[in-house]
Amino acid sequence: MNTYVRDGAEIYRRSFGMIRAEADLAAVPPDVATVAVRMIHACGMVDLVDDLAFSADVVAAGRSALRSGAPVLTDATMIASGITRARLPCANDIVCTLPDARVPKLAAHLGTTRSAAALDLWRDRLPGSVVAIGNAPTALFRLFELLDEGVGPPAAIVGVPVGFVGAVESKEELVRRSPAPYLVVHGRRGGSAMAVAAVNAIATEDG
Amino acid sequence: MNTYVRDGAEIYRRSFGMIRAEADLAAVPPDVATVAVRMIHACGMVDLVDDLAFSADVVAAGRSALRSGAPVLTDATMIASGITRARLPCANDIVCTLPDARVPKLAAHLGTTRSAAALDLWRDRLPGSVVAIGNAPTALFRLFELLDEGVGPPAAIVGVPVGFVGAVESKEELVRRSPAPYLVVHGRRGGSAMAVAAVNAIATEDG
Repeated sequence: MNTYVRDGAEIYRRSFGMIRAEADLAAVPPDVATVAVRMIHACGMVDLVDDLAFSADVVAAGRSALRSGAPVLTDATMIASGITRARLPCANDIVCTLPDARVPKLAAHLGTTRSAAALDLWRDRLPGSVVAIGNAPTALFRLFELLDEGVGPPAAIVGVPVGFVGAVESKEELVRRSPAPYLVVHGRRGGSAMAVAAVNAIATEDG
Repeated sequence: MNTYVRDGAEIYRRSFGMIRAEADLAAVPPDVATVAVRMIHACGMVDLVDDLAFSADVVAAGRSALRSGAPVLTDATMIASGITRARLPCANDIVCTLPDARVPKLAAHLGTTRSAAALDLWRDRLPGSVVAIGNAPTALFRLFELLDEGVGPPAAIVGVPVGFVGAVESKEELVRRSPAPYLVVHGRRGGSAMAVAAVNAIATEDG
């Protein structure tokens, strides 16, 4: 009982070593692999890599955007809360419009979820941003609609909405469309912890 | 593309229907099953139920404590951020001491992680509280130490720390000790989204 590991750095070192030993990262470029290791660390599942799909330049594109001061746009307050400010290179804004007071009326007007309607408040900031959708499939679907309307694309998209209705389809659609460099976890898995891990890893080069 | 489901209530209804159809909840009491459905919804994995372990009275004990005004104590700011305030019956406090300015020094003094050291600031509020540990195994281990020192036990414990070093062992230890009614997800899986889903479901009786 008193023998558990208490040294945070040692816990990270051992965890990442176990993930590297168990996860099949052979086909993943080094910078994406570093992000994948962080995502696996956040969910405890090394087979996450089987569902990973990505543009080869997604990490470079996202990191470059953040270094230019791009904001992070996200669909869930938990994600905004989880991103480590100290990792961001330019004190970048982290934007989650879901709690905005205009969203319920927008959702009623658009006939959609609040998570999707919240993206209508992204329009001005979307071009060149880093998007992290880790909760609502409808938010990812709404992103495609905004892009279809002519809003400029983000620099990179972390697409890991989770769940049973629309999650699979929204991520397949993202890969099919590829409106910007993307990182997705196919299937039902996803969530705010994975989205946070991905953004935190994209933000900094250290393991 | 334009055919995705946009009605939030309908998305929930279909999602919960799919989970109830696919997850083997036969051996789980109804109130715990409702919580399990929410946890599965948050992670997209119906086989989560295979790793679920619980005291039969954990939901009743947690709900009763919240109705008496007990605080929720948690190890991660993401969890504190994700708990839906409107679901809490008494505007209950949600306490996460990790960002407290005293924690780094405490961690150095105790020779442990910041996540574990943060629990030393829980002492006054721990007895009768609802504890939700969804990130750090060391926090759960530290909880056992505080209880060994004589701090009064919480009313209920959601124990879903995630990861590769200590997660499995800390949850096994929680079940072995059973210092209070508990809900755990054995194995490496866990995380803040699961912890939030569990607390939100414990807080209210509606599905």
